Amino acid sequence: MSDQIDHIETHPEGLSESDYTLSRRDIAAILYAVDAQDQAKLLELMEPLHAADIADLLEQLNPYDRRRMVTLYGREFDGDILSELDEGLREDIIGVLHPDVLAEAVRELESDDVVDLVEDLDEPQQEAILDALEDADRVAVEQALSYPETSAGRLMQREVVVAPDHWTVGEAIDYLRSAEELPEQFYHVVLVDPRMHPKGNVTLGKLMSSRRSVKLTDIVEDVFQVFRVLQDEADVAYAFNQYHLISAPVVDEDDRLVGVITIDDAMTVLDEEHEEDILRLAGVGEEASLTDTIYEAAKGRALWLFVNLLTAILASLVIDLFAETINQMVALAVLMPIVASMGGNAGTQTMTVTVRALATRDLTAQNAARVVLREVSVGALNGVIFGGLMALVVAVWFGVPMLAAVIALAMLGTQVAAALGGIVIPMALDRAGIDPALASGPFVTTVTDVVGFFAFLGLAASVLM
Amino acid sequence: MSDQIDHIETHPEGLSESDYTLSRRDIAAILYAVDAQDQAKLLELMEPLHAADIADLLEQLNPYDRRRMVTLYGREFDGDILSELDEGLREDIIGVLHPDVLAEAVRELESDDVVDLVEDLDEPQQEAILDALEDADRVAVEQALSYPETSAGRLMQREVVVAPDHWTVGEAIDYLRSAEELPEQFYHVVLVDPRMHPKGNVTLGKLMSSRRSVKLTDIVEDVFQVFRVLQDEADVAYAFNQYHLISAPVVDEDDRLVGVITIDDAMTVLDEEHEEDILRLAGVGEEASLTDTIYEAAKGRALWLFVNLLTAILASLVIDLFAETINQMVALAVLMPIVASMGGNAGTQTMTVTVRALATRDLTAQNAARVVLREVSVGALNGVIFGGLMALVVAVWFGVPMLAAVIALAMLGTQVAAALGGIVIPMALDRAGIDPALASGPFVTTVTDVVGFFAFLGLAASVLM
Repeated sequence: MSDQIDHIETHPEGLSESDYTLSRRDIAAILYAVDAQDQAKLLELMEPLHAADIADLLEQLNPYDRRRMVTLYGREFDGDILSELDEGLREDIIGVLHPDVLAEAVRELESDDVVDLVEDLDEPQQEAILDALEDADRVAVEQALSYPETSAGRLMQREVVVAPDHWTVGEAIDYLRSAEELPEQFYHVVLVDPRMHPKGNVTLGKLMSSRRSVKLTDIVEDVFQVFRVLQDEADVAYAFNQYHLISAPVVDEDDRLVGVITIDDAMTVLDEEHEEDILRLAGVGEEASLTDTIYEAAKGRALWLFVNLLTAILASLVIDLFAETINQMVALAVLMPIVASMGGNAGTQTMTVTVRALATRDLTAQNAARVVLREVSVGALNGVIFGGLMALVVAVWFGVPMLAAVIALAMLGTQVAAALGGIVIPMALDRAGIDPALASGPFVTTVTDVVGFFAFLGLAASVLM
Repeated sequence: MSDQIDHIETHPEGLSESDYTLSRRDIAAILYAVDAQDQAKLLELMEPLHAADIADLLEQLNPYDRRRMVTLYGREFDGDILSELDEGLREDIIGVLHPDVLAEAVRELESDDVVDLVEDLDEPQQEAILDALEDADRVAVEQALSYPETSAGRLMQREVVVAPDHWTVGEAIDYLRSAEELPEQFYHVVLVDPRMHPKGNVTLGKLMSSRRSVKLTDIVEDVFQVFRVLQDEADVAYAFNQYHLISAPVVDEDDRLVGVITIDDAMTVLDEEHEEDILRLAGVGEEASLTDTIYEAAKGRALWLFVNLLTAILASLVIDLFAETINQMVALAVLMPIVASMGGNAGTQTMTVTVRALATRDLTAQNAARVVLREVSVGALNGVIFGGLMALVVAVWFGVPMLAAVIALAMLGTQVAAALGGIVIPMALDRAGIDPALASGPFVTTVTDVVGFFAFLGLAASVLM
């Protein structure tokens, strides 16, 4: 049987080493097989690919080729491919799959993967998948679905390896070696007391290397975190990252062990949280993915554009106040976007640092005052530097010394306002329970635009006119 | 010894359940002990805290309290705290620590943590730490440091559990149970051929649950990735995330096993990459953290502000071309920032989606044309919507129908240009080997500002004058 191992390669066949993406040639070969309706060839080309790579491939095809490929792939379609697929595409693919193929694909999956798969589906598709499961699995999935969407209860797997906390290493090893069925992947034996309260984690490595007479309680890991089923998955991901956890038990309201969360689940959550932060900071709807339709993508971005339109109009009203001033000196119209643009950029910088610091919990009540002071100082320092620089440019360009002084002062004021807005607004939103990544942008831009135009045009009106 | 386990709590003592941060009261108690120079009290308060939480606490104190606390903490100062500390603070703390305390702290650490610790230090501090290590550890650390900074070689740990690929489960178990020393954490036994080429991974759980006579090659994991020492850590993190890896061997140029990378290292890299992306997209220097000094923070942001100043001046030059037009109709000055601002926002949205899709490798040569077309369509759709909306506003506000038509057309053009710039610029930078997160922003803003002002004022000049 050693040839089973011989064909394992350093990298999955067909993937280039450098970037783990399929080459154009491989994709062309696959599409050719689909065109020719050559099922044998398609299966041969797909065989070495990981489910995650097949899912990526499907995401990159156009809808027509995608459906044809899934249909031709037929019985070989794997449940793992569905799990790896972008959420936006799952309904589409499930709709194309033959009910028998779907049932078989779903039955191969572990219960937490099924939960992840069905939670975003429409009612009828959800039913179809639940019906395909065996009774025990169906109950497990339905129970998981009864927990809130981003809770530890949704994230955990039910399969846990436990041992009574009075056992020795020898007893635990004998139990494990005689156990009928163990989970596919597990890293710890969870020690429990008679009431199923988790008391500690023993790593398999430690178990392997300890004498049989050693008590399990003597080799538990130093760091031990327990999560409650209703705890938010963001907290779970944070704790995994902060305390370098590998797996951690989950307890119900009575502190009884009901499941375990492993680091790979936490990594997925962390990845999603980051994605959400980046997209929210840029004002892009959350579900944005390359497989969204034009209409979906436009809708996702329109909300932010609309809010931005309102703040831009507000800024215009400020300019309108000084229309007469601009009429007398058109150089003001030429220069004013510089003041606002520099303020907007500085505000975005501070806001991004603040949003990150709140997410990583580095910004707390303890250091808030000091950090605000630091940001304002940074704003003032850059305000002096860039205000000074711009004053030189204006003095040379327009030859009006007072105009140079006005733009320098306006830029300094705007930079300080940007720093203040960039840190105080996200902190206030966070304290009010609103995600600062989502809502800070429009407020900060409004502050920098309004202050920028008002300071520059207002100073100009009073000094130059 | 079972009381060792009794004091393990669901959550580390002193941390609030909901957010894993120290309460103000606990921090006050710790600072009070420092003020009173009460070492016994300080040790008592710090004892239940995880090294990561102590590091966070140090980061939140002001420099004066921080140094006093480290000095009072004395001998108890742990190497793990140094590892968890923000890079910017390490030099400061190392400078405060007594050389003996530092030496002892460092000797407790695993070699890959020492590498992580020393790689960013100045030469003299680096020497001081290397000198504290035992010879074997020092060699290991120096060898790791000989690999490039973001390579798999730097990231891996040297301690690997290997077994010849002809062994049975029984032989492997006997070997593990008799081994002198096993790594603290390991998840797989790596099978190797006689030339030390890795051939497969066997999980400890599978080993535990298989009969003694089973060959190891028959129970290897399906998914098996091998990394080269010089491979970039970003590739490693991507592969861990894509293929749900737990640990993976690393080979040298001759394909011989030299180390192993585990999922917690990959999670850290993924976290850093995300952080970098978010900060780069906002034009904040990479090392930005709340412990940076005012000067460091200002410097980190000044580069981007300077680039932005240049693009803003460029946009002003465009406005200057139409100074005469503005002079005749000051409403243009009032309205032009709206066109540019809406374009800038749409450009940032598209750019962020593109940068993310490039990072997750969802945007490839295969679907590039289709995605560009989609983005342009989204831009056109939102351009029609918001151009139309703004035309209504202008018609009511200024009562000049032609001005309304001009702004609608200018906004449509700018939205399409923003979409095009937002996707084509990051793609071009990526193909040129430049990080699109770092450099796209200024280019995209330039495009949207220049196109926005030119389209609006140019149309106005030719239609309205």
